[in-house]
Amino acid sequence: MLLEAIYHRPKQNWAYAYDRSTLHLRVRTKRGDMDAVQAIAGDKYAWDKTKQTLDMRIFASDALFDYWETEAEPPFRRLRYAFGFKQDKTELYMTESGFADRLPDDCLTFFDFPFINPADVFEPPAWVKDAVFYQIFPERFANGDPDLNPEHIEPWGAKPTPGNFFGGDLQGVIDHLDYLQTLGITAIYFTPVFEATTNHKYDTRDYMKVDPHFGSNELLRSLIERCHERGIKVLLDAVFNHAGATFAPFLDAKEKGADSEYAGWFHVRDWPLRVEDGIPTYDTFAFEPIMPKLNTEHPDVKKYLLNVARYWVEEIGIDGWRLDVANEVDHAFWREFRDTVKKVNPDAYILGEIWHDSMMWLQGDQFDAVMNYPFTNAVLDYAAYGKLDGRSFANAIGTQLANYPQQVSEAAFNLLDSHDTPRLLTLAGGDERRMKLAALFQFTYPGTPCIYYGDEVGMSGKGDPDCRQCMVWDERQQNGGLLRFYRALIALRKEHAALRGMDFAFLHAEADDAAIAYERRGGGERFIIAMNAGTASRELNIHGAGGDWQDAFTGHRAAAHKNSLAIELEAGGFAVYKQLK
Amino acid sequence: MLLEAIYHRPKQNWAYAYDRSTLHLRVRTKRGDMDAVQAIAGDKYAWDKTKQTLDMRIFASDALFDYWETEAEPPFRRLRYAFGFKQDKTELYMTESGFADRLPDDCLTFFDFPFINPADVFEPPAWVKDAVFYQIFPERFANGDPDLNPEHIEPWGAKPTPGNFFGGDLQGVIDHLDYLQTLGITAIYFTPVFEATTNHKYDTRDYMKVDPHFGSNELLRSLIERCHERGIKVLLDAVFNHAGATFAPFLDAKEKGADSEYAGWFHVRDWPLRVEDGIPTYDTFAFEPIMPKLNTEHPDVKKYLLNVARYWVEEIGIDGWRLDVANEVDHAFWREFRDTVKKVNPDAYILGEIWHDSMMWLQGDQFDAVMNYPFTNAVLDYAAYGKLDGRSFANAIGTQLANYPQQVSEAAFNLLDSHDTPRLLTLAGGDERRMKLAALFQFTYPGTPCIYYGDEVGMSGKGDPDCRQCMVWDERQQNGGLLRFYRALIALRKEHAALRGMDFAFLHAEADDAAIAYERRGGGERFIIAMNAGTASRELNIHGAGGDWQDAFTGHRAAAHKNSLAIELEAGGFAVYKQLK
Repeated sequence: MLLEAIYHRPKQNWAYAYDRSTLHLRVRTKRGDMDAVQAIAGDKYAWDKTKQTLDMRIFASDALFDYWETEAEPPFRRLRYAFGFKQDKTELYMTESGFADRLPDDCLTFFDFPFINPADVFEPPAWVKDAVFYQIFPERFANGDPDLNPEHIEPWGAKPTPGNFFGGDLQGVIDHLDYLQTLGITAIYFTPVFEATTNHKYDTRDYMKVDPHFGSNELLRSLIERCHERGIKVLLDAVFNHAGATFAPFLDAKEKGADSEYAGWFHVRDWPLRVEDGIPTYDTFAFEPIMPKLNTEHPDVKKYLLNVARYWVEEIGIDGWRLDVANEVDHAFWREFRDTVKKVNPDAYILGEIWHDSMMWLQGDQFDAVMNYPFTNAVLDYAAYGKLDGRSFANAIGTQLANYPQQVSEAAFNLLDSHDTPRLLTLAGGDERRMKLAALFQFTYPGTPCIYYGDEVGMSGKGDPDCRQCMVWDERQQNGGLLRFYRALIALRKEHAALRGMDFAFLHAEADDAAIAYERRGGGERFIIAMNAGTASRELNIHGAGGDWQDAFTGHRAAAHKNSLAIELEAGGFAVYKQLK
Repeated sequence: MLLEAIYHRPKQNWAYAYDRSTLHLRVRTKRGDMDAVQAIAGDKYAWDKTKQTLDMRIFASDALFDYWETEAEPPFRRLRYAFGFKQDKTELYMTESGFADRLPDDCLTFFDFPFINPADVFEPPAWVKDAVFYQIFPERFANGDPDLNPEHIEPWGAKPTPGNFFGGDLQGVIDHLDYLQTLGITAIYFTPVFEATTNHKYDTRDYMKVDPHFGSNELLRSLIERCHERGIKVLLDAVFNHAGATFAPFLDAKEKGADSEYAGWFHVRDWPLRVEDGIPTYDTFAFEPIMPKLNTEHPDVKKYLLNVARYWVEEIGIDGWRLDVANEVDHAFWREFRDTVKKVNPDAYILGEIWHDSMMWLQGDQFDAVMNYPFTNAVLDYAAYGKLDGRSFANAIGTQLANYPQQVSEAAFNLLDSHDTPRLLTLAGGDERRMKLAALFQFTYPGTPCIYYGDEVGMSGKGDPDCRQCMVWDERQQNGGLLRFYRALIALRKEHAALRGMDFAFLHAEADDAAIAYERRGGGERFIIAMNAGTASRELNIHGAGGDWQDAFTGHRAAAHKNSLAIELEAGGFAVYKQLK
């Protein structure tokens, strides 16, 4: 047994309350090292009467490790536990004190989950795992009210630059709700809509006001009501890390210097506020002078921003917030933010923009989810770029499942592109088949998928500003086949709980093989999804897949032979087999 | 290189802000596996201009691993970083995406410490690391006011039972402040003093009132003022996990059942409140019916307890709280508790009772420290029981140093016994020499040492209630030699910053060898401390210890020969050599 590979530390993703009565215990071992792993667990105040042995199962694996999991429902909400490892005839036990050849008699040195307190249980909103998100960059989605146009706008569909405008607005969104409903999405995430000077609105002038080029607070309320009537939730973008250069408190601080009553609202290294050698004398987002970082520890700033957080949820009716540059703001602020938002809407979704390891924000006290860029990277590397073989892709996915509590995976925001990246079709080298494989994985994996506006009609685009082109509404310009694919994919996911649940397992994921197959189970149904990101056609034989199957897209029927299902996959091809009863 | 052994995950004890400008980065490798480890770090928004390579050093080791550390002071408070490993001619790099043979060009996939926000920086009170604590169990320390005696008391010095009383009180403590000051202690931790029915007072009746058998709120205020005049801080015990059976809200809930306005103050599984087959129908501490667990999520309970927390700090002047059964209370409550306490006294010390891994409470948002029982166990195993050889002891200490951020080790509450354990002398099998070795290590190690009342005069006692005997005041009954030793030990620690700082390194810690030596440096001074927990005398030769030395206890002078210092150690003996200038 490789002792150095064995890892467990209480809480976080290793021992956590999945709900108010259930604990999940996990432990890591070297891949393939153990024949069996068990947890020995009981109540610390009644150890002898309550101790039990729980078999663990491998719920994820990656290049180096197997990750074992079991669950327990301690009747008095307390659990002491140790782990037992078996390899051939060797047995080994691990407690908090280290390794031992036999299990200690009492549980004093065991690991401890002291008490399941409901306040600490991480419960993301239940609706999220069933949602299908659609991201809208309002300036580029649709121009529904030309009266609100900025002074100079380009013709719809012209080439975007960092600074130009096209006149997209909220009325434009309202005008296309039928389109969105037909597409099948159930939630919209808007990039910022508050008053600001830029086309992206990440330099907020006024957090309490919809940008006049987009509409008004009342119009947003109306948009949300119409969305809600159609079963569509709405998320806004909270840019609380930094304000804009035209934000009144910043203007005041700039004008009055250290004497400004808003001097403490910013992180100032030297007065007066200015830029020297390209570096502002105050903290900003990156080194961007028009995005002064807000001092979210200052009581007045907190009061102001928390009121903003409350207002749009309570008075305008939004269903949650996406938090821009969320990891550069203090944890203490986000805890108060969560309290404030959940108090007015316990079902609100709090989604942080974090591109890196996010465990510290996903423990129940801060966010419900983060924008799942590690998922993005793995799927793109496999499906869009062909850089990963099946085995490496499965390893990347295994690492991600192991990295977080189950409820985090269930509510993760799984995007493939955004206003901050090139578009999916472009990332896939313009290859529609590769794009579809990526989307297929996205829509048949746990977590909530998000489509960046226009991807579904075949829009392409390199990085900002090219990825922010105007939505293509002319059906002759749209890729109708791709649109039908997306509609079918969304409908499929919504119809089958198996495709949304946590029961996910790779059936085929091998080195030097670009074809993969995985199984999805749930709600009494069973799917096998296979795809081939390679450049040659492939036949996969899936063992243990007895019975009759039908492809959910083509209707093609297939029967297993000797408990093995043969799946033909063209280069870039896929199959979504549902087991027939 | 053993990849499975390499571990790093941002924040917690692996990447944390040590202060408002300094980050500590740590990574774990298999023990002895690497020739060198480096961190490659810079600002994510100006990577090419700011990236630098930082050499890491091994700051701790244990049975399996070396732990490497370096520090960085990122000018814009953001840091992206990766690790580089060298073994012979092999190089390996680790980013958040995994391992690679060469360092990626851009820092996109590197680890990320997004921003040092002051609100998130864990800053325990500075005074703690220089303090010497003394724990008092008030009912057994001294009877200063017989008028307050409980109805039936035993003669001072009689045998304690779980239920009997001896009349100890606050006046008794006031009467002996000279003694405590002469001993040299600088802080007192009192077990509970609030009104309750038991002798230990862990079943609180009234959180706003000093127990009438102990005195009054005014008398406590006076005690604290007198302590402060002598430079002694005072900690009280906050029993917030559970109340007592005579707590008015519990009596009301017991009487009125589910209709009680206090029904929500407790965790009730079934009304009416009762005990069935030895198990209360409401949550309690353990299964103890007279200790009903408080529902610290209920707004009224929170309001009540947070006012208690505030009152004794703000209006009575205590310097902090020791939190009983701290890990069974929700994290959310403790965050509000910290905010409340630190608002009225930023220098207050918040000390949780947690016997297990405490990382989740020691991140700056909850406690300043926990009762360091893992330290206790390691020191007892080595010095008191002789169960660990030097190597194993050093490994246990190494694990502990690696498990937490540096400021946690600096402010840790290092006890060797308490009202919950047998007394140190008894744990040491009555062997005064072993007891002294344990105390010597405790007082020459980072963290704040605590003496359990009476240990210093040679009191012994098995587990509760035997460890709660009356303080021995008759000097003829006291162990004068031990008392002088403790006075000298305390004085030595207070005099030399080197003995309190973090610069700690084992110089000799070998398998099958009960003698150890370690080095302490700081304030321009250098100490070598050696001890022999074995049963035969030993000579240690400490290489690299050139120059002249003097034993701080005996005054004995020793000179190194060929850069090596010879230290003679009897069985149970020790030496504290200070390098002469």
